[in-house]
Amino acid sequence: MRASDPTGLHRVLDDRVVLPQAADRLDTRKELWPDEVRIRVERLNLDAASFRQLERTHAVGGRGDGDGVRRAVLDIVATRGKMQNPETGSGGMLVGTVEEVGPESPLGLAVGDRVATLVSLTLTPLVIEDGLAGWDGRSEQVPADGYAILFGRSIAAKIPDDLPADLGLAVMDVCGAPALTARVVQGYDAPVVAVIGGAGKSGSLSLAAARRAGAKHTVGVVPVQAEADLLTAAGVADDVVLADARDPIALRDAVAAAAGGPADVTVVCVDVPGCEGGAVLTTAAGGTVIFFSMATSFSAAALGAEGLAADVTMLVGNGYVPGHADYAMEILREHDGVRSLFERRLG
Amino acid sequence: MRASDPTGLHRVLDDRVVLPQAADRLDTRKELWPDEVRIRVERLNLDAASFRQLERTHAVGGRGDGDGVRRAVLDIVATRGKMQNPETGSGGMLVGTVEEVGPESPLGLAVGDRVATLVSLTLTPLVIEDGLAGWDGRSEQVPADGYAILFGRSIAAKIPDDLPADLGLAVMDVCGAPALTARVVQGYDAPVVAVIGGAGKSGSLSLAAARRAGAKHTVGVVPVQAEADLLTAAGVADDVVLADARDPIALRDAVAAAAGGPADVTVVCVDVPGCEGGAVLTTAAGGTVIFFSMATSFSAAALGAEGLAADVTMLVGNGYVPGHADYAMEILREHDGVRSLFERRLG
Repeated sequence: MRASDPTGLHRVLDDRVVLPQAADRLDTRKELWPDEVRIRVERLNLDAASFRQLERTHAVGGRGDGDGVRRAVLDIVATRGKMQNPETGSGGMLVGTVEEVGPESPLGLAVGDRVATLVSLTLTPLVIEDGLAGWDGRSEQVPADGYAILFGRSIAAKIPDDLPADLGLAVMDVCGAPALTARVVQGYDAPVVAVIGGAGKSGSLSLAAARRAGAKHTVGVVPVQAEADLLTAAGVADDVVLADARDPIALRDAVAAAAGGPADVTVVCVDVPGCEGGAVLTTAAGGTVIFFSMATSFSAAALGAEGLAADVTMLVGNGYVPGHADYAMEILREHDGVRSLFERRLG
Repeated sequence: MRASDPTGLHRVLDDRVVLPQAADRLDTRKELWPDEVRIRVERLNLDAASFRQLERTHAVGGRGDGDGVRRAVLDIVATRGKMQNPETGSGGMLVGTVEEVGPESPLGLAVGDRVATLVSLTLTPLVIEDGLAGWDGRSEQVPADGYAILFGRSIAAKIPDDLPADLGLAVMDVCGAPALTARVVQGYDAPVVAVIGGAGKSGSLSLAAARRAGAKHTVGVVPVQAEADLLTAAGVADDVVLADARDPIALRDAVAAAAGGPADVTVVCVDVPGCEGGAVLTTAAGGTVIFFSMATSFSAAALGAEGLAADVTMLVGNGYVPGHADYAMEILREHDGVRSLFERRLG
């Protein structure tokens, strides 16, 4: 047995040397390397883009085919040893209970801890043992029995006792966004912050984080009146404006009208393609755009900013910032408006 | 005639409101809006990825078909009103002479100035008038007669008199990289800087910029011995190491062995896919990765860093930084090693 690597490299079965996330197939053996942790899985939370792709592919006569979607997920996990949709490249996260802790694990977990994994399913060795019998294939929330492996360098967070599990999970799913937004906002002196997709999960947390971190003025951008009403009622943003983020001029003008000028920090939280140019155009010279949307095109962002001669810093939204889960929970606990937006989504 | 917009929006012919770079088709009318400039085109410099794609598509029996490539370029420009390869999405740049300056142009150009455009061909209205009769379709350098339009917010740089035109053009083509590298390096206290693809155009300029901006130690990473020899002879990097950047562990270990640990700043200048994980893994906690490669995958970078629990800042390499062309020229003039690497590539 080869030595373990904190990145999980020792479980990659591909011929080429690649990290687990880039691998075609992972080793899902149950026995742990000394720095690993095994989780008894309770629930998978599929990435929204991945679930929608599976639903579209398996629609019959325009209607979703839950059995087909379930078979597809089982097939992906059995083939790859992880839940990574080959089309979208995305995965999701999982909730479960710590089943065994290797003697050299640095994660600080104990057997019996109820945890959510904060690294993607795209790199987590996973075995499903119940054929997903408890899932109808019609929701991103997948009850499942099986096990998953965490590496030395993985991240898992204990699920808070004072919050319902689904709420805690939904917050953890997007907890990188508020933490990184706060860090960027703190780098400016009382900046104007615009959050595109402000009524969503990562968007509402980012708006609250921006205000807490010292933003002078926050603008939440949403595409439809119903979302504008919800966001206004939640009291998370100083201004709420309606704009299609794919229309760069409309976006720029809507933010400028609300804030009296361009944003110093623009946060893109809306999962539709084609928002790069608008985000750049909405941001002042010397400002920063943070892209959290997985629909972001690297080349559209790079060429777009160059083409506009825009001196803006563009960040790839890293889902990991130290302390991110605790920080997001703190915001949720102290801000009823954010909590109401989350609870509404959970239905 | 509608009013002009500094972004060039007034020349977009699409039904949807999009910026010129995202547009299918641009208005190439010769008459200028008041803030525009018209350039008499002398030469196009096609983006390398675009040219290779055209060459592959038009190969006959494994050999390039220059006539086919030329017809393809003419067809793209005639159809779209700009040279943007529909497959790669990329364009290139152009050299020419200022033919007319609108009364409200803010670019500071005068009729007769010889300039290179520093915004991409993907958003530059272009008409070719000579059928590319002087081009054999076998090189990225395309002699051409025709005209192009610059908008209020475009960037064009005068070609320096003291450098051969092709050398000046090659430097301008990548001048965003050294300027942004210098800015990031200055944000650290004597950092270790690794440049992946250090022997290339943007790579060698970035290495020289990093040293000039206060790097304690610079490491150039190259894939083959011949490039290592060239880079060593040029004296641009403190250390030159061999590694395949697609192999994350090999990359991490090679840089750590040379620099005594991870890099504080990692600059990705090599145009092959799959370098995201390695670049993240090579970078210390609190460090920065700058992606200049158009082959970068946004989701691979975002999910890769999250999966490694890597607290690194990841920047989309913006091709525009104020003063970037002058800064790159300054480096070239004062560093014979960088100049020799450029001249070797120009043949």
